[in-house]
Amino acid sequence: MKLSNMHLKTLREVPNEAEIASHILLLRTGMIRKLVSGVYGFMPLGWRSVRKIEEIVRQEMDAKGAQEIHMSAVQPAELWMESGRWFKYGPELWRLKDRNGREFCLGPTHEEIFTDIVRSDVNSYRQLPLNLYQIQTKYRDEARPRFGLMRSREFVMKDAYSFDRTFKDLDKSYDDMYDAYEKVFTRCGLNFRPVEADTGAIGGSNSHEFTALSEVGESEIAYCEKCNMAATTEKAACVDAPASNEKELPLEEVHTPGTKTIEEVADFLKLDKTQTLKALLFVTYDDDGKEKGYVAAFIRGDRELNRTKLVNALNIPEHAIEFADEAKMAAVTGCVGGFTGPVGLHDCKIVVDSEIPGLRNLCAGACKADYHMKNVNYGRDYNADIVADIKLLKVGDPCPVCGAPVKHARGIEVGQVFKLGTKYSESMGAYYKDENQKDQLIVMGCYGIGVTRTLAAIVEQHHDENGIIWPMSVAPYHVIITLVNPEDEVQSKVADDMYQKLLKAGIEVLLDDRKERPGVKFKDADLLGIPIRITVGRGAASGQIEYKRRSETEKEEISAAEAIARAIRTVEEEK
Amino acid sequence: MKLSNMHLKTLREVPNEAEIASHILLLRTGMIRKLVSGVYGFMPLGWRSVRKIEEIVRQEMDAKGAQEIHMSAVQPAELWMESGRWFKYGPELWRLKDRNGREFCLGPTHEEIFTDIVRSDVNSYRQLPLNLYQIQTKYRDEARPRFGLMRSREFVMKDAYSFDRTFKDLDKSYDDMYDAYEKVFTRCGLNFRPVEADTGAIGGSNSHEFTALSEVGESEIAYCEKCNMAATTEKAACVDAPASNEKELPLEEVHTPGTKTIEEVADFLKLDKTQTLKALLFVTYDDDGKEKGYVAAFIRGDRELNRTKLVNALNIPEHAIEFADEAKMAAVTGCVGGFTGPVGLHDCKIVVDSEIPGLRNLCAGACKADYHMKNVNYGRDYNADIVADIKLLKVGDPCPVCGAPVKHARGIEVGQVFKLGTKYSESMGAYYKDENQKDQLIVMGCYGIGVTRTLAAIVEQHHDENGIIWPMSVAPYHVIITLVNPEDEVQSKVADDMYQKLLKAGIEVLLDDRKERPGVKFKDADLLGIPIRITVGRGAASGQIEYKRRSETEKEEISAAEAIARAIRTVEEEK
Repeated sequence: MKLSNMHLKTLREVPNEAEIASHILLLRTGMIRKLVSGVYGFMPLGWRSVRKIEEIVRQEMDAKGAQEIHMSAVQPAELWMESGRWFKYGPELWRLKDRNGREFCLGPTHEEIFTDIVRSDVNSYRQLPLNLYQIQTKYRDEARPRFGLMRSREFVMKDAYSFDRTFKDLDKSYDDMYDAYEKVFTRCGLNFRPVEADTGAIGGSNSHEFTALSEVGESEIAYCEKCNMAATTEKAACVDAPASNEKELPLEEVHTPGTKTIEEVADFLKLDKTQTLKALLFVTYDDDGKEKGYVAAFIRGDRELNRTKLVNALNIPEHAIEFADEAKMAAVTGCVGGFTGPVGLHDCKIVVDSEIPGLRNLCAGACKADYHMKNVNYGRDYNADIVADIKLLKVGDPCPVCGAPVKHARGIEVGQVFKLGTKYSESMGAYYKDENQKDQLIVMGCYGIGVTRTLAAIVEQHHDENGIIWPMSVAPYHVIITLVNPEDEVQSKVADDMYQKLLKAGIEVLLDDRKERPGVKFKDADLLGIPIRITVGRGAASGQIEYKRRSETEKEEISAAEAIARAIRTVEEEK
Repeated sequence: MKLSNMHLKTLREVPNEAEIASHILLLRTGMIRKLVSGVYGFMPLGWRSVRKIEEIVRQEMDAKGAQEIHMSAVQPAELWMESGRWFKYGPELWRLKDRNGREFCLGPTHEEIFTDIVRSDVNSYRQLPLNLYQIQTKYRDEARPRFGLMRSREFVMKDAYSFDRTFKDLDKSYDDMYDAYEKVFTRCGLNFRPVEADTGAIGGSNSHEFTALSEVGESEIAYCEKCNMAATTEKAACVDAPASNEKELPLEEVHTPGTKTIEEVADFLKLDKTQTLKALLFVTYDDDGKEKGYVAAFIRGDRELNRTKLVNALNIPEHAIEFADEAKMAAVTGCVGGFTGPVGLHDCKIVVDSEIPGLRNLCAGACKADYHMKNVNYGRDYNADIVADIKLLKVGDPCPVCGAPVKHARGIEVGQVFKLGTKYSESMGAYYKDENQKDQLIVMGCYGIGVTRTLAAIVEQHHDENGIIWPMSVAPYHVIITLVNPEDEVQSKVADDMYQKLLKAGIEVLLDDRKERPGVKFKDADLLGIPIRITVGRGAASGQIEYKRRSETEKEEISAAEAIARAIRTVEEEK
């Protein structure tokens, strides 16, 4: 395409709202366009790249025998009530009513719809396995949409659902998708890592996130360089401290004025933080958003709470819990802000981290202002409603697999695969008849790729201070020919000739024939990040042009014919 | 693809809800799937055909230099308020709120969004002309969704918007799109007719509908075989009866007991219906849905009212008018059900058809039960607030262009092109600077193709009693190989060999290797309507297979090699 005909509006300045590179660059290149907070449109170049990612996804899904379909984005509430998610899903579920008052939502995922398909279409074991997918616009009414395509309210997603006879068959489907995802993200040019993940609101047993490594990512992952363990910090299991064989000492109340934090009390009493017990206080809500009860969670003083693990231990939706108003909670449970301990607490659910019962003689709040208790022991002095691993795996903690110290990294979740098992087939009644004509639950998996988020992740990993550096596979165009002086007949002829020849060879090529200063054109070429840049300037008179890769600094003067041959070869190799 | 691996569920019976061929066949082939009333999903075969139509549309749009983008389906109310459509658009506009109570709609069209793009991106005349389009899921919350994809609440649409400097340039853009649409629908195998159309809620001056001819279509068109005039009956202009040169006779009240209809009064008074005046009574509503006032429309007794023309004459939204409750209206305006005439009516808007002022001595209701007035004359006895053509062009009426008697036909509106002019650029402030740096309004056009409705229209025109007969260009697959007996090794080998060779040649081929009775397979092949059917049966032993076009009745016994060559050639020619 000729740039003089293209709708292109690049920006020199960094848009106010944008903080991270992908957001800044996608806006500056004019590839995306904000409509309202968290809702973006795609302009010609941006949409081309989205469609290339879609095509890569489609090819790899098809290669695994998955079949593309397209279901409605608008879903009736009834199906979500059947699965139980209508109430469990938080305010991120964008709900609406039709003219008759019937309730719908704009689908964030499609488990219900796909389960509904198989429960009506699948009768026999002969119809399984089955993998259906779609590439579609999805919705999440985020409280704080941010970072452009990274966390938006409308986004393009590929979602696939597998249906199997057995859990063993599900393993095979899961592995197939895992493999397809590795291929997809490799082809997209991403540096990524599959990590074990929590299953969140989707439910199910096993899950992996595909994380594109990036400092600006919202996923934090813990990984071990020794044994390759990798998991989201939400999910990563922790190694409990070894059980103590200290003798249980008598409970002792001590005056600890003004020591509201673990640091303060440990300092004051000259204790190591590992000898203290930290309390975290929460209120929970029911499906209607009314306060339901209080929760006190206890972990060793040096640990940090893993909120996801706590939510899972309580078996409640993520949005059904918040930090408690301590004054309100005190009136009901006897807790005392800054001095809460497990002894003497009442009328609340007590959750204790899994290593606590093995530890001895900890120091905890006395539920009395300015007092702590020493030598608090689980079993003797208090009991818990739930004992579970609710702590965070921190940098340097022992790896849960091999014991080596773990590291942390940040990343962008670009894909996730789940073993759903029979969660949805059970709640919605999806069965097949086995060889003996007996009804069996269909075993499900689900698999998502954030197509538009992948676009942002690619930009995060492929840019420099001048702009984007597209991998060939997802570049909106392969080649840009910068015609330095469109008034110069020789230059125009050479540029146009190359343009036509490249087009004919099936290369996607932009010809920058705009009447702009050369500096503007070079800046735009860098900003847009087209992988191969051909500059037709004064050298054109002697048949020479300048050939440059966007990813490299060297330029070469070569003949037009050689440039064409080289561009065709390179695109063939890399696309 | 092998059918044994494909998710395919065909139905033998006609689904209850379906009345027309496309709805029945798309459901019976399992290509579409109803989610709720007016909302359908697309299963593998259906989605393949939709994507083929999309690709045809994309190619023809790109060939005209239009650029594909992708805007949000969710649109903020603010933009619709700017254009004035938030209130004018009826309950078909599917409205919703986000978690913060901000109002949005699910876009039925995108004029506001695209106008917003150009008003911010376009500064100079040098950036024009511009044509941007998208292929996207659209929404209309229909009161009575029906006929499957024909009138659904969610549908795939291509919408394009052109931006020009002048109305003359708009003519060129419009002609380009008109031409592209002719190519698109021709490639889709449709028998269609472009007809002049009303501009409806979109607004603007000129418009053509592309109508796929079909008895089940909801568009009624009037056309002339002599001069090629063609228009929707909503739009079609009428030729007024010639003005009368009769002398005006004195008004005369006559007793006409029980003659409530035109037929009755004409019979009773022995008048021709052309000598009578028919009254139609309406109530109108304001933007908040409150009653605003009454309207009495008068046409010659033998004519029918064209409601669209009336709405346009009144310059109100289509949904802001309904037939009046005569009793309620009588109290305000003095009308009398069955005996309403223009003389003596008060406190209502009087709209008179354009030919009425030229006629003389008509018989009209006397606004008095059981009485009519004879010799009612416009100007002398009454006046109107509006005089406009509000009558329907009926079969046999003179063609407004050449005077020959017109015919009627029914069709499915698969596309529409509009000259919007400056309607949106004016209301939303979209200007460009001309050569003299002066602000000028951008001149717009908009152009829609109902992609999923086109799919239905194709099926309406291409089917027989056994199923669909796909044109090659939009067939989900080109060839189906029916393997009669999968247990037979020779048959299996021949079928599989042909399958592989066709795949390798880039042919989209289905292999029916299911363990089903041959009758079931043949029935499914007919139902699915794949253009080329190759049957591998007993003849396989001697190297012969059966070759048949779905559109024809003859079968031929030919060699496998010849069948492959012929299939490849045919697909090449027709795809």
